Formats: sequence, C-alpha cells, structure tokens
Amino acid sequence: MARLHHVPLSPFCRKVRLSLAEKKIEVDLVEERYWEADPDFLRRNPAGKVPVVRLDGKMMSESAAICEYLEETRPEPPLMPKDPEARYEVRRLVSWFDDKFHHDVTSKLLYERVNKKITGQGYPDSRNVKDGAKAIKYHLDYMAWLLDQRRWLAGDVMTLADFAAAAHLSCLDYISDVDWNRSAVVKDWYAKIKSRPAFRSILADQVSGFRPPPHYADLDF
Amino acid sequence: MARLHHVPLSPFCRKVRLSLAEKKIEVDLVEERYWEADPDFLRRNPAGKVPVVRLDGKMMSESAAICEYLEETRPEPPLMPKDPEARYEVRRLVSWFDDKFHHDVTSKLLYERVNKKITGQGYPDSRNVKDGAKAIKYHLDYMAWLLDQRRWLAGDVMTLADFAAAAHLSCLDYISDVDWNRSAVVKDWYAKIKSRPAFRSILADQVSGFRPPPHYADLDF
Repeated sequence: MARLHHVPLSPFCRKVRLSLAEKKIEVDLVEERYWEADPDFLRRNPAGKVPVVRLDGKMMSESAAICEYLEETRPEPPLMPKDPEARYEVRRLVSWFDDKFHHDVTSKLLYERVNKKITGQGYPDSRNVKDGAKAIKYHLDYMAWLLDQRRWLAGDVMTLADFAAAAHLSCLDYISDVDWNRSAVVKDWYAKIKSRPAFRSILADQVSGFRPPPHYADLDF
Repeated sequence: MARLHHVPLSPFCRKVRLSLAEKKIEVDLVEERYWEADPDFLRRNPAGKVPVVRLDGKMMSESAAICEYLEETRPEPPLMPKDPEARYEVRRLVSWFDDKFHHDVTSKLLYERVNKKITGQGYPDSRNVKDGAKAIKYHLDYMAWLLDQRRWLAGDVMTLADFAAAAHLSCLDYISDVDWNRSAVVKDWYAKIKSRPAFRSILADQVSGFRPPPHYADLDF
C-alpha cells in the first residue's frame, strides 16, 4: 500500500495518482496543506511541496522522478515505450505540460482562481487570467496537431505524456476553463482517457468552496 | 557530430553540454538569441527555448528528455546508476536544481542581473536579488548536508545530479554570486567537477558585457 500526500487540484499529484492507479497500486490519499509548512511535512519533503509518496519504505518527492521509479519497478502495464526515440518524445511532452503548459496556463488560471483563495493570497489577477485563457487555446491547438498524426499524444500507445496532459486539463476542467468544442480530436482523446478506471478517483474529487460543473465527471461530456 | 543551439549562461544548456562532453560526443555550439523568437528557431523548437540539440538526425528539446536519451543511447560512461532507488535519487536532485533551485536562486540572481540586460528588459529588481542571495545560502547548506554523507550529490558516483547542480552554480559563479567559503565540502565537490575535461568549454565561456571574476576559470579557486 502506498501513501500519497497530495492536494486534489494539483496536476503533479494527479499525474502520480493516474500512474499508481493504472499500475494497480493501492494508495491511501492524505490531503496536505503544504502551504502551511507543517514541520512534519517538511521533514518528509524539504522542498515543501506535493506530491510526496511513501512507497517501498521510502518517502519520495518530485513527480517526474516518482513516475520514472514506478515505471522501472512496476513495468506492467507500461506507460513508456521501449524505443529510446519514443521514450524521448514521452519525456519531452511530460516536460512540455509540466513546464510550459504549467507556466502558460495552469499557473495563470488554476492558481489564480483556486490556489490563491485556498492559501489566503487574495483575488485572481485579471491580467494573468486573461493571458492563461488565451494561452490554453494555443496549447489545445498544439495537442490537436499532435493528435491528428497519432492515436495518443506521444505516439500509438497511451503513455505518461497523456497522463501529464490529462492531469493539467482535468484540473482546469474542474473550474470550467477548458473549451472542449475547440477541437474534436482533443475531446475524443480526453473522453478515452477519462473513461479509464484509473481516472475514477480524480472525477470524484471535491474541493470545498469550488463546485465542479456537471460535465466534469460526465463521461459523455 | 551534434549541434547544440544554446546560450552560454543557461544552466539547462550547460547540463546538456556537460553530458555530451562527458560522453565524448563532439558538438558544434550555435548561440541562439531565443528571446527574439526567430521563425527558423521556432520551427526547430515550438517551445521557443534553449537547449535544442540536433542529434541522430532529430531536433530535440527539453534538457531532461535530452539527457535521458543520451543516457539510453550512449550509456558509457554512465551518468545514472543501475539501481531504481539510486536512479530515483538522481532524478529527484536534477528536479531539485532545475525546478526549486532555479526558482529560488537562478531566476532571481542570474536572470535579474544578466538575462534582463541581454534581452533589453531593464534593471534588476533588487527585491528578487536580495531573495536569491538569501536562498542560495540555504541551498548550499543543503548540498553540504548531502555531501557530508556522500562522495557525490546523489551517492558514491558522479551522476547527472552533479551536472545539474554544477550547471546552475557555474552560471552563478560567472557573476560572482557563489560564496565558496560557506562550505568546504561543497567547494571540494565543485573543485572535483570543475577539473573534469568536460568542464573546459564552460570555463572558457565569455559573455559580452559581463566579465567573469578571475577565480571563475581557476581550478584552484
């Protein structure tokens, strides 16, 4: 049994949750108010952020390192292809979403609308929200361009790249910030990933003070 | 022959340069004024940032994905151990430096003092510089704590984690922002890594308008 210290609307935590669930590793979820810098939590992770997972008797942090570790120690079902070029493409896209998409979109929409309120940092900056709303269109178009050529984001099989992207988009969908009408291929891709058993716990998330739209948990959205 | 599009004072580019050099892959360096968003460069990398490397007939971006690809296709000499737990620790530390150290220190010192001037964004924000100067002490202490228990940052062998850390610190050392008197073990570690042949090209870097201190390229600093 793994134990994951997380917050429900963190794309990095969701990516780890999806990997754990897809690999059928049972997990005990513990919500962590990481911004309160509780000394017990800081002892578990000096970086002071989530996700932190207790697995194989070790406390582990940094979502990318955790997911690679899971892949190396629990290879079934695989979330990375075998070929080095294909693995490169998976890792490039995981970085694309966790770095660029996060910077351009997630930090400007989710963090402004949700994290600021939860952590008592005041109101959303409307300039950031406007920039994020503009940037997500460009990113959805980039995804559509990839999915016009491939069944999944990094190639013909589902990988960590799909989980990274779905982790961000599902958090933004919780606050109605994804326009699913922009691209049919992106919507189809999300419908496929949303209907996986690994996604169930994410669709059941409830964050106090923020009610998701009805389509959030609907598989026929 | 690889071709690397880079800027000299980018820790992400330096990490890739160190990996290429350690694995004895000859590289043609091309300085890229990525902030000018040249259409040719954007075609090579839609994320619009460096490093971008041309290798095995492919254009590759995202330093973490590039380094993992190098490791998988050119395993000698290894920059990652074999054991999954040890590999986790390497990746955790690479993320620590490229994410947390970058956010706390590099973006607040190097980007304020150098990148802003080069890209015509004005003067350093003194609040950021002050925060960065404070944060680097905490990070050097964390490195000292690791190096009290281990020969290299992630364990008993030199790995990508050391290159990630040295890439950031060498950029900061170029602008005299590292207090090497703070910790003898950290200084010894940097002396070891600085004296490797792979480090030579980095010590020879010259950035117009910024002269490095005499100790920057001195192996007995």
